[in-house]
Amino acid sequence: MEISKQTINQLSDNPLYKTLGIRIESAAGGEARARLEPSAEVCWPFSGQPHGGILFTLMDTTMAWAVLSQSESGQNCTTINLNIHYTQPATGNFFICGARVTHQTTRSSFLTADIHDEQGRLVAMGQATFRIIRAELL
Amino acid sequence: MEISKQTINQLSDNPLYKTLGIRIESAAGGEARARLEPSAEVCWPFSGQPHGGILFTLMDTTMAWAVLSQSESGQNCTTINLNIHYTQPATGNFFICGARVTHQTTRSSFLTADIHDEQGRLVAMGQATFRIIRAELL
Amino acid sequence: MEISKQTINQLSDNPLYKTLGIRIESAAGGEARARLEPSAEVCWPFSGQPHGGILFTLMDTTMAWAVLSQSESGQNCTTINLNIHYTQPATGNFFICGARVTHQTTRSSFLTADIHDEQGRLVAMGQATFRIIRAELL
Amino acid sequence: MEISKQTINQLSDNPLYKTLGIRIESAAGGEARARLEPSAEVCWPFSGQPHGGILFTLMDTTMAWAVLSQSESGQNCTTINLNIHYTQPATGNFFICGARVTHQTTRSSFLTADIHDEQGRLVAMGQATFRIIRAELL
Repeated sequence: MEISKQTINQLSDNPLYKTLGIRIESAAGGEARARLEPSAEVCWPFSGQPHGGILFTLMDTTMAWAVLSQSESGQNCTTINLNIHYTQPATGNFFICGARVTHQTTRSSFLTADIHDEQGRLVAMGQATFRIIRAELL
Repeated sequence: MEISKQTINQLSDNPLYKTLGIRIESAAGGEARARLEPSAEVCWPFSGQPHGGILFTLMDTTMAWAVLSQSESGQNCTTINLNIHYTQPATGNFFICGARVTHQTTRSSFLTADIHDEQGRLVAMGQATFRIIRAELL
Repeated sequence: MEISKQTINQLSDNPLYKTLGIRIESAAGGEARARLEPSAEVCWPFSGQPHGGILFTLMDTTMAWAVLSQSESGQNCTTINLNIHYTQPATGNFFICGARVTHQTTRSSFLTADIHDEQGRLVAMGQATFRIIRAELL
Repeated sequence: MEISKQTINQLSDNPLYKTLGIRIESAAGGEARARLEPSAEVCWPFSGQPHGGILFTLMDTTMAWAVLSQSESGQNCTTINLNIHYTQPATGNFFICGARVTHQTTRSSFLTADIHDEQGRLVAMGQATFRIIRAELL
């Protein structure tokens, strides 16, 4: 299932993403890309730096879109496990996360993801297992 | 450094915790406990269930308080790595996270944490490495 | 399925465990305990310290026995993901690993485990997901 | 420090690698590559499949060589944390691990690694943190 720009826009227009500052940019063929422009509320305790949990949420959500981009109608997914490493302080106005399915079985997806800052520096990397579930996409 | 109830209350009164619905309950001797009453905004895509990234943020922040509860004045901490497993869907009105330092060196802390729902069921478990840094606590 | 001492002894008598120095001590009710007396061959590059991969193998195998201790006849299990933290150098003549299933679904088990040295110091901690598969136990 | 073929050969000639069937192939510029031809002893409990702990040992050791390939004389390294995902059963005569440093600070290295079977299929992926320590390379 390739996810059209229109569907992405509709689904991205939700309270969680708005509150945190997340926007999905693309999702196709097991890869997805999303952008975080963190709201002031989530830049705590270090001003100008999104909390690590917000970077994690960006990564988790980008991975989910990568899974969905190759799943079938009527399927959704849920995170089983995500391991994140923070490589350096995340400062700047925006961050880009890229996620990729590395292996897919009937019920599970394995993924890796990276987050870079606006200067292209790696600020976080992660790997995860997702489970495919029966549930409508919103 | 034991962290007084008053200090915890002051530090907990921040925009991130308010936006997500986090409140620190205690932090002493390398252990901390926090509570999440998720705001409606962060219960997406499944209504009534906080996003996995919000549970992660709860865990990460509780772990940080566990580290701080036995660090010295002028020290702060930062997450190097956190691995989270989601054991079952997280539904309900509130969630409790308990975190514990399992080993401490001069510069690093190792921790485990669990999140339980209001019925005492395990919904997430995690383990992490934090680094001790020189930085004032807010 | 409780695993009898006799079955454990039979199954433990295998080339892998002998080569590395692993012995299962008990497995019942979702918990297992195993012992490593590392052979000289696997104490490299630091003499007297088992390689981290050998400690990992001890942990992985103890977790598997914890899963098997509550699975049914005709079931076996396989590791999906294991995250290990090494808290301090592992020196000494033997090491004890304890593993525990923290949550179980029809197809998956979630576990935590610790490894202590002979003085009771924590040298490694881990958490994992295993999948239950259809396969005879050896 | 680029690591010469001769040094690699000398260091690879150790009891651990021989027992398990590991051989380092290259290490330079923060990347390393190693090969596992598993001995019969370590293919248990599934005949023809190296135990997951042996694949982990291959990954851990390849990562260490990637770190060493860009460290200075008098430095060695130790694993703080390694998270491994097994994507599919590992069958075949040999396996290739590639590891890469993704970020380096004065005291820490962050890495990712993959293991492929002889047909080029991904059988495991991992990410890790290593600490740089003062210790002679063997």
